[in-house]
Amino acid sequence: MLKVEHIGIAVKNLEKSNVLFQKLFGKEKYKVETVESEQVSTAFFQIGETKIELLESTDPDSAIGKYIEKRGEGIHHIAYEVADIHSEIDRLKSEGFTVLNETPKKGADNKLVSFLHPKSTNGVLVELCQEITASSD
Amino acid sequence: MLKVEHIGIAVKNLEKSNVLFQKLFGKEKYKVETVESEQVSTAFFQIGETKIELLESTDPDSAIGKYIEKRGEGIHHIAYEVADIHSEIDRLKSEGFTVLNETPKKGADNKLVSFLHPKSTNGVLVELCQEITASSD
Repeated sequence: MLKVEHIGIAVKNLEKSNVLFQKLFGKEKYKVETVESEQVSTAFFQIGETKIELLESTDPDSAIGKYIEKRGEGIHHIAYEVADIHSEIDRLKSEGFTVLNETPKKGADNKLVSFLHPKSTNGVLVELCQEITASSD
Repeated sequence: MLKVEHIGIAVKNLEKSNVLFQKLFGKEKYKVETVESEQVSTAFFQIGETKIELLESTDPDSAIGKYIEKRGEGIHHIAYEVADIHSEIDRLKSEGFTVLNETPKKGADNKLVSFLHPKSTNGVLVELCQEITASSD
């Protein structure tokens, strides 16, 4: 795993949280993006080599909507950049981790993404991600 | 804020989690450290410029012990490296954040650290940290 690509934080109200995190970081978000397949609106802040991704649910039945209902706002997942998501999925499966989607799907920020079930990773929802290029898709 | 210095993950059993995270990352921890003032045993993995810090409580009444009792294992805090922790504390107070310890204390890994209350930061426990040098202490 190459780096912590981003940390996903579940928020109730993206507009309010954008203001809050702008104050926290002393800098503005650099991008907003809606990911319809995941039913979320997102905003990104860059801190060093890592992005902080704020996630607001656009549907109460989305993963983020259910997370907030159950646990409240807070850190939702850690995403690690990998060089080859397909070989990492194979490696992690062979190590006993539960891969939630063995076929990577298109996530925010032009990435192919797969998730590991938090029951297999000490309660941490882990995302693997790889930038989509002509060869990775 | 300069970078995500580390992500703290609360675990029940450091020995077992060290094995788990070694499999996850495909590399070994580079350090273990006990922080008696915080009643935790810790292990560190390096991923890019960010460390993953596993935290096991050595006392049920410690912050980590109480966290696990209430919420189970999982992501406990995000630590941002700052250039000057004293001026950052002043700035964040003036922006309305609740600083839990206005006088930075010595944390793991030779750092001065302060925490922001998660109620003021969207449910995320935020740590500010600065490497201890002759001039920062």
